Amino acid sequence: MKIRLVKLELQTRHEEELVDITSEVERVVHESGVQNGMVNILTMHNTSGIIVNEGLPCLEMDILVHLEKLAPDEGNYHHNRYLESYGRLGYNAGAHLKSILGGVHAFFPIQNGEIVKSQRQRIYFAEYDGPLARQYCIQVIGT
Amino acid sequence: MKIRLVKLELQTRHEEELVDITSEVERVVHESGVQNGMVNILTMHNTSGIIVNEGLPCLEMDILVHLEKLAPDEGNYHHNRYLESYGRLGYNAGAHLKSILGGVHAFFPIQNGEIVKSQRQRIYFAEYDGPLARQYCIQVIGT
Amino acid sequence: MKIRLVKLELQTRHEEELVDITSEVERVVHESGVQNGMVNILTMHNTSGIIVNEGLPCLEMDILVHLEKLAPDEGNYHHNRYLESYGRLGYNAGAHLKSILGGVHAFFPIQNGEIVKSQRQRIYFAEYDGPLARQYCIQVIGT
Repeated sequence: MKIRLVKLELQTRHEEELVDITSEVERVVHESGVQNGMVNILTMHNTSGIIVNEGLPCLEMDILVHLEKLAPDEGNYHHNRYLESYGRLGYNAGAHLKSILGGVHAFFPIQNGEIVKSQRQRIYFAEYDGPLARQYCIQVIGT
Repeated sequence: MKIRLVKLELQTRHEEELVDITSEVERVVHESGVQNGMVNILTMHNTSGIIVNEGLPCLEMDILVHLEKLAPDEGNYHHNRYLESYGRLGYNAGAHLKSILGGVHAFFPIQNGEIVKSQRQRIYFAEYDGPLARQYCIQVIGT
Repeated sequence: MKIRLVKLELQTRHEEELVDITSEVERVVHESGVQNGMVNILTMHNTSGIIVNEGLPCLEMDILVHLEKLAPDEGNYHHNRYLESYGRLGYNAGAHLKSILGGVHAFFPIQNGEIVKSQRQRIYFAEYDGPLARQYCIQVIGT
């Protein structure tokens, strides 16, 4: 069994942003040499996520606008207080909630060295609290 | 290590629908011969999902009604415009959003050849933009 | 390939509660002897979930309060009726809906015998219908 784990860095540019990482995932799968197995994708941050959806700019906007509607940045949150462990006020409860609603991971099967998904399924790193330097993991497991 | 990947076809019959696919998943696990490992279930479409919940018609209705409340089909979406790549108007942003909120995959452990889950956990293919011919994947990995 | 599956019992103490199970997951990973692979965490109940987020009491409250806002316990649900299979009224549709929105599983890579995640990512068992005796699974797969 082959196992390959890659941590990738990402600099997001906006407060909220969907960054298409599909080609990164495909590259890691190809480089792993795994022919049959699975690929796991995970964010390393609680105010970000991994989302699978269609690669259309209009839909990317709809997703971010709608998550903001369901989990607004502004709100009467318990997290809006001085946090000793941070040395500052908490302010990003909305980003944490978006992360939970949108999800923090994805996986796909691998067959004959290729990711099994439809052409229209794209894999996104979702930034909810940027711009920030971010990390995400791609793990390939298989034979 | 055994790896078995099956793509299944599904014809949904309503615009929104939860189709119980638990017995399909069980069949694929049994046919794989895998005794210990895991089973992954994924939809191949961005306007559908995979949901794990209880097999009661009243709850199935509640789930669909509630997702419609949280991500209505009717809305002021950016996707509601002429899409060159489609050759028509986008209209199903609500279905894309439901897919993100409800999730697009599930997995369960396999032990002694059986899926490890409680009796009440059923696995559903969730249609948010039907009726359509759909595909989903079941992958079994293990020994 | 090593596969280790552990079912853990949990007694929740409140109607809604986030129980930090990170140290349990770490213990099972260490005891498995797996150096490289993945760990899967799943709830066995349809009115509970598995959530990954930061270990701050203020955020834990925000998560539960916000899920209650998005999927209230009180509502005009189809599930609020006499259920023959239960021998009583259904009443917990809101808990089922929270389970779907928050998700029912998580996974992380394992490298050099340790879970790959950031320090701030904690793993929670989410109770939405307690207090109850609950079960969840931790599965370690790898070499």
